[in-house]
Amino acid sequence: MSNAKPLPVIPCCPPLTERPFTAEEAETGARMFKALGDPVRLRLFSAVASHEGGEACVCDISDVGVSQPTVSHHLKKLKEAGLLTSERRGTWVYYRVEPSVLAAMGSLLGPPAPR
Amino acid sequence: MSNAKPLPVIPCCPPLTERPFTAEEAETGARMFKALGDPVRLRLFSAVASHEGGEACVCDISDVGVSQPTVSHHLKKLKEAGLLTSERRGTWVYYRVEPSVLAAMGSLLGPPAPR
Repeated sequence: MSNAKPLPVIPCCPPLTERPFTAEEAETGARMFKALGDPVRLRLFSAVASHEGGEACVCDISDVGVSQPTVSHHLKKLKEAGLLTSERRGTWVYYRVEPSVLAAMGSLLGPPAPR
Repeated sequence: MSNAKPLPVIPCCPPLTERPFTAEEAETGARMFKALGDPVRLRLFSAVASHEGGEACVCDISDVGVSQPTVSHHLKKLKEAGLLTSERRGTWVYYRVEPSVLAAMGSLLGPPAPR
């Protein structure tokens, strides 16, 4: 049985070159960008995204030059913004990048390549 | 002869899934994301990016529900962050998306497709 929880989804946005964003699209997109608009959060996000297996526990990624409580604070912010998901397994909480975030970033750049 | 001015460049970042960002990469990337982390700025940015010919004057894009001085303020912020460039022609100032911004967003998602 899976421990996976329902994932938050970031349905943002049309390609930047397609048309001006609506107010709602801009709200959603800006929330995502704002969450990544802090150097420590962006480092943590890239550390999770690039970690082996696509997930990382705090123990793997706290080498970002700030205290452990600050790391936890920023991980919580990234979760609240829907950019990371987390799952407790035993002693540790494991973080993953919410896949729709990368999909949302990709969609900003243009329509998906034909398959 | 071209009126083009030297463009600011945003050399950011390796693909998110490649390795954790360095402090410097995170600073650069976070500055870009922070500039887009405001709904009005993101609407203006998408309005410029999607406008015919890839450029727009204030007169084309001020329909974002805020006052003209607020529009000007946010366009200035986007310029300062290196996301837009501007050029005065006659009465109007024309804005363009700095191409390296879209390149930087693309690079976050992975290596460029082979050509």
